[in-house]
Amino acid sequence: MKKEFIELGDGAGGELMQAFIKERILSRLRRKDRSTEGIPPSLLDDSATVGEMAFTVDGHTVWPLEFPGGDIGSLSVAGTVNDLSVVGARPEALSLSLVLEEGLNIEVLDRIMSSIGATCEEAGVEVVTGDTKVVENGGVKGMVISTSGIGRKHPLLPSCLSRASDLRSENGGPKVDAAWLRADLPRPGDVIILSGSVGDHGISLLSFREGYGFETEVRSDIAPLNQMMEDIMKVGGVVAAKDLTRGGLANGVNEWSSKSGFGLMIREEEIPVKEPVRSACDMLGLDPFEIGNEGKLMICAAPGAQEEVLKAIRANRYGRDGAVIGDVVSTHTGVILETEVGGKRIMDPPHGDPIPRIC
Amino acid sequence: MKKEFIELGDGAGGELMQAFIKERILSRLRRKDRSTEGIPPSLLDDSATVGEMAFTVDGHTVWPLEFPGGDIGSLSVAGTVNDLSVVGARPEALSLSLVLEEGLNIEVLDRIMSSIGATCEEAGVEVVTGDTKVVENGGVKGMVISTSGIGRKHPLLPSCLSRASDLRSENGGPKVDAAWLRADLPRPGDVIILSGSVGDHGISLLSFREGYGFETEVRSDIAPLNQMMEDIMKVGGVVAAKDLTRGGLANGVNEWSSKSGFGLMIREEEIPVKEPVRSACDMLGLDPFEIGNEGKLMICAAPGAQEEVLKAIRANRYGRDGAVIGDVVSTHTGVILETEVGGKRIMDPPHGDPIPRIC
Repeated sequence: MKKEFIELGDGAGGELMQAFIKERILSRLRRKDRSTEGIPPSLLDDSATVGEMAFTVDGHTVWPLEFPGGDIGSLSVAGTVNDLSVVGARPEALSLSLVLEEGLNIEVLDRIMSSIGATCEEAGVEVVTGDTKVVENGGVKGMVISTSGIGRKHPLLPSCLSRASDLRSENGGPKVDAAWLRADLPRPGDVIILSGSVGDHGISLLSFREGYGFETEVRSDIAPLNQMMEDIMKVGGVVAAKDLTRGGLANGVNEWSSKSGFGLMIREEEIPVKEPVRSACDMLGLDPFEIGNEGKLMICAAPGAQEEVLKAIRANRYGRDGAVIGDVVSTHTGVILETEVGGKRIMDPPHGDPIPRIC
Repeated sequence: MKKEFIELGDGAGGELMQAFIKERILSRLRRKDRSTEGIPPSLLDDSATVGEMAFTVDGHTVWPLEFPGGDIGSLSVAGTVNDLSVVGARPEALSLSLVLEEGLNIEVLDRIMSSIGATCEEAGVEVVTGDTKVVENGGVKGMVISTSGIGRKHPLLPSCLSRASDLRSENGGPKVDAAWLRADLPRPGDVIILSGSVGDHGISLLSFREGYGFETEVRSDIAPLNQMMEDIMKVGGVVAAKDLTRGGLANGVNEWSSKSGFGLMIREEEIPVKEPVRSACDMLGLDPFEIGNEGKLMICAAPGAQEEVLKAIRANRYGRDGAVIGDVVSTHTGVILETEVGGKRIMDPPHGDPIPRIC
């Protein structure tokens, strides 16, 4: 049946959204993927590159505007900082587009702006340009924030990629021929590392919003991860990184599998999930691996680099629960999860997002 | 009285918005204006600069989404292209953040995406990165689009500024010591040029929306003006440019006056206003100089450059009605309008925007 109307799933970060963006948006923008060295728009990576500059954008519609562990302001800044960082850029400058609802309490705005300032300070970036619109009551729900960001290639990136190339060669693998960290670079033999527990952000919001009674236990994991990425690149030997937002871990691993053309084997028992997140998911019939995070990285390291990279992640304040969770393999395509009870199942990409408006 | 709630005027492009942004937003972002050469965020110019790169953003909430002469898509692209162009950058890459309302007709979205593609094609820019969110019915009105853009300094800019410096020196004026076109550079002796008629965009939208019965006559003037800026810089001798969006001409001239610290003398009879725009304004009690445009430039030329610059503007398809409308003076501060009947009056900056949601 011909699609007639926009649906929530079209913007939910899963398979539906990928199809929607390709069919409805990219098809109408006559774009030339000029550079084979950089990250072309068609890769739909976390940032695109323009010469030596990475460039990214995220729109934020999270509801409520403030929640345990963060608010729409810290979310916006961290999200954009992380999207730049995971391709190997050093975040430098942000733009801030605010659409505010008439009648919004000014103290809420003040707190959110202070939160933006504090998160920028932590990440060492600046908002350099902005735009403010106010729409009539009901025109948006509280506020919508879009943040875009730019950053030059990090000076540590070339040596990081070059070490990955060396390590792969020592193990009989292919060289790394790339100027940025890219989602299509994972190769069999590479190792998948996760920087901490998954599901915290989405479950925190859901529980706070719906009042399931576990409000105090789970907080959003919102964090700018540029320092962690720098720590990782200093070790080197890494070819791809991703912050696991909409669609969560399940979306991230499937994205790497489909973009690289290789399979991923993930060990469920290694994936950190906090107890209250697990309980909430059990109760609500949700899969913690499909729930969005705002302060978790997935890293693809060349064989032999994983121990040092994990050590660097664990030494960072946001990476204490980091773990090696799987491998890139050539024995299958897609993602297979080795379950805790010893079986194996296909880990599909999420169709839509199980929890709306969490980012 | 202490401000408690956000008001429409806080985002309307006039005096209220300037105060709101300074008090509520800039004050909470700890920013360092590091470069004295570039365009610091605190100047609140159309773009900021980061090294040799200009960076800007605009959020768009125009209603209805489609109207005579354009739509929210062409508006977004042209707006961002123009903000980059007026500081002397060559627009290169755009980001596109969409917030869509669940239930939006897909054909409307398709047309708007095609319009984005066509406007990018005309302007020679590319959308390289994007983000799509879908919110529940009523969460936004149709859609909100935020576009940010980056562009390197135009190769013609240095010679343009250097010619302005020479021309000023020949006339006993100060040299131009700047690396970009800036709103604080106008000096007494400089000449103000307008690229065409004012008020078309706002009146087109208002009449279409409200059904005043003159729908067919006025169309929005939405246009990417990067080619016109290139034509102007080729002539050279220009120190500032502004696209006259929210707040219209009245906002633009007052911005230059307050940022430069000098007065502007504007001749009303030289300002092109189309007859249906004038009639509509008379009928509705609106000032055409306060109404937003989306395809009109104001240019500040060094003494002696104005005729050639005007010729270049008029040779461009979007500048046929271009006119010299006034001068920068040292005899007063603020903006004085010489009226058509021979009097003089102060041209105040608009307080808010007379027509909501036109951009």
